[in-house]
Amino acid sequence: MNPSPSDLRERVRAFVRDELFPLEPAFLNAPLSEVGPRLDALRARVREMGLSTPSLPRAWGGLGLSLTEFASMSEELGRSPLGHYVFNCAAPDIGNMELLLHHGSQAQQARWLRPLVDGRIRSCFGMTEPEHAGSNPVMLSTTAVRDGDDYVINGHKWFASSAEGAALCVVMAVTDPGAAPHARASQIIVPTDAPGYRLVRNIPVMGHVGEQYFSHGELRFDNCRVPVGNRIGAEGAGFALAQERLGPGRIHHTMRWIGMAERAFDLMCERAARREIKPGQPLATRQAVQFMVADSRAEIHAARLMVLDAAAKIDREGPKAARHEISMIKFFVANVLQRVVDRAIQVHGGLGVTDDTVLSFFYRAERAARIYDGPDEVHRGVLARQALRPYGVEVEL
Amino acid sequence: MNPSPSDLRERVRAFVRDELFPLEPAFLNAPLSEVGPRLDALRARVREMGLSTPSLPRAWGGLGLSLTEFASMSEELGRSPLGHYVFNCAAPDIGNMELLLHHGSQAQQARWLRPLVDGRIRSCFGMTEPEHAGSNPVMLSTTAVRDGDDYVINGHKWFASSAEGAALCVVMAVTDPGAAPHARASQIIVPTDAPGYRLVRNIPVMGHVGEQYFSHGELRFDNCRVPVGNRIGAEGAGFALAQERLGPGRIHHTMRWIGMAERAFDLMCERAARREIKPGQPLATRQAVQFMVADSRAEIHAARLMVLDAAAKIDREGPKAARHEISMIKFFVANVLQRVVDRAIQVHGGLGVTDDTVLSFFYRAERAARIYDGPDEVHRGVLARQALRPYGVEVEL
Amino acid sequence: MNPSPSDLRERVRAFVRDELFPLEPAFLNAPLSEVGPRLDALRARVREMGLSTPSLPRAWGGLGLSLTEFASMSEELGRSPLGHYVFNCAAPDIGNMELLLHHGSQAQQARWLRPLVDGRIRSCFGMTEPEHAGSNPVMLSTTAVRDGDDYVINGHKWFASSAEGAALCVVMAVTDPGAAPHARASQIIVPTDAPGYRLVRNIPVMGHVGEQYFSHGELRFDNCRVPVGNRIGAEGAGFALAQERLGPGRIHHTMRWIGMAERAFDLMCERAARREIKPGQPLATRQAVQFMVADSRAEIHAARLMVLDAAAKIDREGPKAARHEISMIKFFVANVLQRVVDRAIQVHGGLGVTDDTVLSFFYRAERAARIYDGPDEVHRGVLARQALRPYGVEVEL
Amino acid sequence: MNPSPSDLRERVRAFVRDELFPLEPAFLNAPLSEVGPRLDALRARVREMGLSTPSLPRAWGGLGLSLTEFASMSEELGRSPLGHYVFNCAAPDIGNMELLLHHGSQAQQARWLRPLVDGRIRSCFGMTEPEHAGSNPVMLSTTAVRDGDDYVINGHKWFASSAEGAALCVVMAVTDPGAAPHARASQIIVPTDAPGYRLVRNIPVMGHVGEQYFSHGELRFDNCRVPVGNRIGAEGAGFALAQERLGPGRIHHTMRWIGMAERAFDLMCERAARREIKPGQPLATRQAVQFMVADSRAEIHAARLMVLDAAAKIDREGPKAARHEISMIKFFVANVLQRVVDRAIQVHGGLGVTDDTVLSFFYRAERAARIYDGPDEVHRGVLARQALRPYGVEVEL
Repeated sequence: MNPSPSDLRERVRAFVRDELFPLEPAFLNAPLSEVGPRLDALRARVREMGLSTPSLPRAWGGLGLSLTEFASMSEELGRSPLGHYVFNCAAPDIGNMELLLHHGSQAQQARWLRPLVDGRIRSCFGMTEPEHAGSNPVMLSTTAVRDGDDYVINGHKWFASSAEGAALCVVMAVTDPGAAPHARASQIIVPTDAPGYRLVRNIPVMGHVGEQYFSHGELRFDNCRVPVGNRIGAEGAGFALAQERLGPGRIHHTMRWIGMAERAFDLMCERAARREIKPGQPLATRQAVQFMVADSRAEIHAARLMVLDAAAKIDREGPKAARHEISMIKFFVANVLQRVVDRAIQVHGGLGVTDDTVLSFFYRAERAARIYDGPDEVHRGVLARQALRPYGVEVEL
Repeated sequence: MNPSPSDLRERVRAFVRDELFPLEPAFLNAPLSEVGPRLDALRARVREMGLSTPSLPRAWGGLGLSLTEFASMSEELGRSPLGHYVFNCAAPDIGNMELLLHHGSQAQQARWLRPLVDGRIRSCFGMTEPEHAGSNPVMLSTTAVRDGDDYVINGHKWFASSAEGAALCVVMAVTDPGAAPHARASQIIVPTDAPGYRLVRNIPVMGHVGEQYFSHGELRFDNCRVPVGNRIGAEGAGFALAQERLGPGRIHHTMRWIGMAERAFDLMCERAARREIKPGQPLATRQAVQFMVADSRAEIHAARLMVLDAAAKIDREGPKAARHEISMIKFFVANVLQRVVDRAIQVHGGLGVTDDTVLSFFYRAERAARIYDGPDEVHRGVLARQALRPYGVEVEL
Repeated sequence: MNPSPSDLRERVRAFVRDELFPLEPAFLNAPLSEVGPRLDALRARVREMGLSTPSLPRAWGGLGLSLTEFASMSEELGRSPLGHYVFNCAAPDIGNMELLLHHGSQAQQARWLRPLVDGRIRSCFGMTEPEHAGSNPVMLSTTAVRDGDDYVINGHKWFASSAEGAALCVVMAVTDPGAAPHARASQIIVPTDAPGYRLVRNIPVMGHVGEQYFSHGELRFDNCRVPVGNRIGAEGAGFALAQERLGPGRIHHTMRWIGMAERAFDLMCERAARREIKPGQPLATRQAVQFMVADSRAEIHAARLMVLDAAAKIDREGPKAARHEISMIKFFVANVLQRVVDRAIQVHGGLGVTDDTVLSFFYRAERAARIYDGPDEVHRGVLARQALRPYGVEVEL
Repeated sequence: MNPSPSDLRERVRAFVRDELFPLEPAFLNAPLSEVGPRLDALRARVREMGLSTPSLPRAWGGLGLSLTEFASMSEELGRSPLGHYVFNCAAPDIGNMELLLHHGSQAQQARWLRPLVDGRIRSCFGMTEPEHAGSNPVMLSTTAVRDGDDYVINGHKWFASSAEGAALCVVMAVTDPGAAPHARASQIIVPTDAPGYRLVRNIPVMGHVGEQYFSHGELRFDNCRVPVGNRIGAEGAGFALAQERLGPGRIHHTMRWIGMAERAFDLMCERAARREIKPGQPLATRQAVQFMVADSRAEIHAARLMVLDAAAKIDREGPKAARHEISMIKFFVANVLQRVVDRAIQVHGGLGVTDDTVLSFFYRAERAARIYDGPDEVHRGVLARQALRPYGVEVEL
């Protein structure tokens, strides 16, 4: 039987606090090789506790949570940079798992989904290309040309998160250049030991090249050959599948951000209460600090209500009906996160920029929140288009 | 039988659009004497339709709406500056009515509540004093000294909205100066024909002295004598009653603001779609305009979710449990309103500052939204105090 | 001999403080008929003191101030809404005077410039048309068709400030529809008693139709006939002349705004120092208030440096070389003004929205600062175009 | 003979562009050991060119630049993170050199200043303590107790920039605990090989422990013994000397930030002009991008004018007279920098968070700009205090 939502939430919160927070100093300050084995042990333990891949159906070993239920759990996990990984529900793996679950063939599920769910392998997703603005998915140069029973793939991808150590890459490639823009591409599974597949480098991001799961790869496909049976879904369905992935993906991301924002908020309040400016006068006696606290509380509250509202709408009516909400939360929550983390750093003073707290990691790792999965500007444009359509205007993006 | 919530909302929306919008140009550009009689006729019609004072119980002629239900109706009414008045649920009357309903004696209800509900008289509320910051209710100089069966009231009040033409003023006065700060004052009904009561002037606000309902009075009480029986509730209960009034009052105000923001949003989109910068290029083709639309849409959405969440909590657990939320919505929504109206004006260009649209009225009338019922700064302080309490700090306001 | 700049500034400052501030309450709260005669008397006195029209050459009765010198004087005058009018250097008169000085024929100067300088008549400027975005001056429907020695003018203008009571209107009209966009129009003097000229109404702006100098007119030209000799400068030079007017006009406006901002700043500090929240604790003890003061001080300082830098560049190299700077100050300073006035109101609490201070007037009258003479969006676009040109991009507005 | 200011500026600009920009990729992506020797070679070359330590007098090998002249040079150097270091005018060395120049004994100058100027040694400055808010310099626990001809120093410092590899540390220590708060401390030179001096660690900051010059040290003084002759200036003069250092130091910092902002601006424009969203439509065609460019241009311009105005005032009247301006520029410019870098990253999209440009370095390294040398909140408080003093209020910080 399922635990009640609040029981589950409480269990997850305690686990994150008791097991993951203590690992963070090592994670922040040492090579991954040090903390990696302990993370793997925790992943195994979470699986044994039955809490792994919670958004997957129980038949596949998950908890069968609705999007709304998962959203709250995701907030708890997001309080640590290690949460989603340890619960095996981190992007891009979880997105690939859901893709294979809904659209993979039985053979694909047996070969790839099973070990992903079991945490025996990892995966990556090859979509963005350095030569093209990620915000315009129609501009795609990677091609997959059919040759007998194979696809021959050529192209260049980057920001393929977690590529290092991945067993497979789901790659978006043009299979029919002559088709309508949104019907040109397909999603194809490329085992990372396929000939012609190459991880060029881990892209240095915010001062680090990263390692393994915590990295972003640049990939080359040079006449990379894979069987046609590795295609997920119909030929030309690539964009449709990507689109489908986005709705729930946004809920995952934004609730994770809210978890981070809550963590930053907690650290900010703690610091405000403890750090004295003058004897007997902690920072919290200063109105400027109080207002950082108040504004953060109000903004996080607004953000959470918006995400839960969007999740409920997706659960109820499907992602298409919730497009409006999905665009909104992406840029709204990302900006709330950036502001809250910024304030928490400011309240910490010098300590805030050190790696003695997790704030500096949030600050660096999540500047990209306003960029990946579409920059703020694209989402504001999409929202404006929807809002202005009833007035007879078709906004061109 | 009650109409369904969505039917009711649709009916109100149509009424506001069809009956009130057309009255606005005259309201904005002519003395109230011109449009006043038409407003009175509409008030009567709304009463006949059974839609008047919707938050009051059916026994008193209302619709018995829950706070959440009333919130949505309030949004619809807020789209016009005339909405709440015509539906006889505008501050300060509605607050006085709810006060009399819950705490008035039968005699008080018969004499004052009945004609207020029937729209035969109007009322005002005398709380703020020019000599003291309204944000600190303990600093109150108006006194009511018992003399036999009377109170003799002396004091100076201002921002008593709708004082001109009111039949009664509910005045907050110190009845026991020696009591604990929050037990010093009582609320007392002063008929405006009582000796010693004087409406000194309509305070000129944003360029207008206002008229009747649409005015803000400065009042003097010079040995003003009223029977002890005019006190509402127990002696010393003044602050507690005022506090009680605030929670639902905030929901009313903030949903009214959201109605205004939606109206401004609608005007902005309409203008963006129609006004051409170059032939064939309406303003809506400009990204800056699109972003004003998108940001406004996202912010209004966040604001509405917050208010409805607070209303549901008050309905469910009472105002005390929702103090956190009530503080939050006050400053959050007021700031959203100000930004949305500002953007709508900007999109209108020169037209936006004229009185050919309702925007300039919103701009002027609601700058005070960030001030009355406690300025932003007070609410942010209260919220910070609540947020920091679990960390062992007691913020002093 | 000229007074030294600092003497002059001190004299003007004292005059504004001692003679104009005391008139403001009547100006803000009564019809102009009450305070009008006293303003006229002060205008005469200023002329006698030799301080009138200070930017005009001494030969014409001015002080021959450079733009930089006038800028500082303009700041002092801007502290009161009455300053520029009383010193006869308010738009649109001063712009029309400078136009006639530089481009008027001797006959035009004798007939129009002389009495304008002497303060015996007033004038207006008819440029913006309600049917077209003011930001695109090429979209102009008013025409002036030559018929013998006359122009026959037809068209519709609005926001012709100070039209009521004006003796002449300088109107921008298309004289050659077939010419290149910027060579189509001419500026023509239309005496307001010319047949076919009509002041349709004073446009209600922010709740007021205004009066006389303090009004904004909507004009109709119906076969309005004036002699060809009323054209200022060459046929087709209308835009070039308007452009020339803009540079110095921006300095005037922005320094006037800085004067307002300084006045608002002064009122804010005064209020912060006097108004007690608790006994012995004035508002100034609150960090939120302190930060409003600090941010305002920093922003006004930045704004002033930018305007003086632009003025010096115009004095040194002419308006064309300073286009970059002129675009920048328009939107930068207008936004500083709006923020400072908003903060000053917030610090005043309820008093801030009344007409007991001048703040509410600034708030209402200068929301248009971000719109007239080109909205923020246009100036930001122009500045971006200039900034991006060296990178090989030609931004289209 | 001195080069003309504009010649000098042009030379420095070319050097930074031609010699330092090419080193940045290695600096950003490899251990310092790789690029370090090349930096040393460039330091030598700059010294040979006579451009090293430009703010020092010519007698000491500098250029004898005024603060205003140095400000402009500092902007040029600031365009690269390597500029000030290569020109041997980077904090903390330059501050220590100016300190020794003005207050060091001849013996101190011979032993420490000479090799610092010659670039043969480096130094650090030990002021901030982890246990106390840096914003309140009176809260200082490090003590220097006189014992014969020695001081025995005990204490704990952090954020001692460039401590690794430094030959000396100028440490602020309490020498007279019984004195008035600002007369308690002295500045004392501690050679880093003195017994009892210990570099505990390089503090990990924004993901990096740093190396050598580019590091921030945590220091312990355990009965660390140095001769009394190592004290700089009079006993108890520590705060006064620190204060003196701050004025020019602020000009250095803020102009360096403006240099960074200009670099970020340049990268932003370049990217906007090159990166296509759709074929033939670079990012610069988007109004949102144009406005990021325009706002950045305006804000940088304002910032520069403010700093140059402050520098001129210091040159003219000394640092004390310019306290107002010095407080203002600190927080104003730091915030401009943060916004401009943020926008430049946003325009770069994914590339902006990589280390393929210098933007991510600026983003990480200069979040501290709003914290070090006093957080924004302290400077806004100081400015408010100065602004409110004429109104009879003494703001308590």
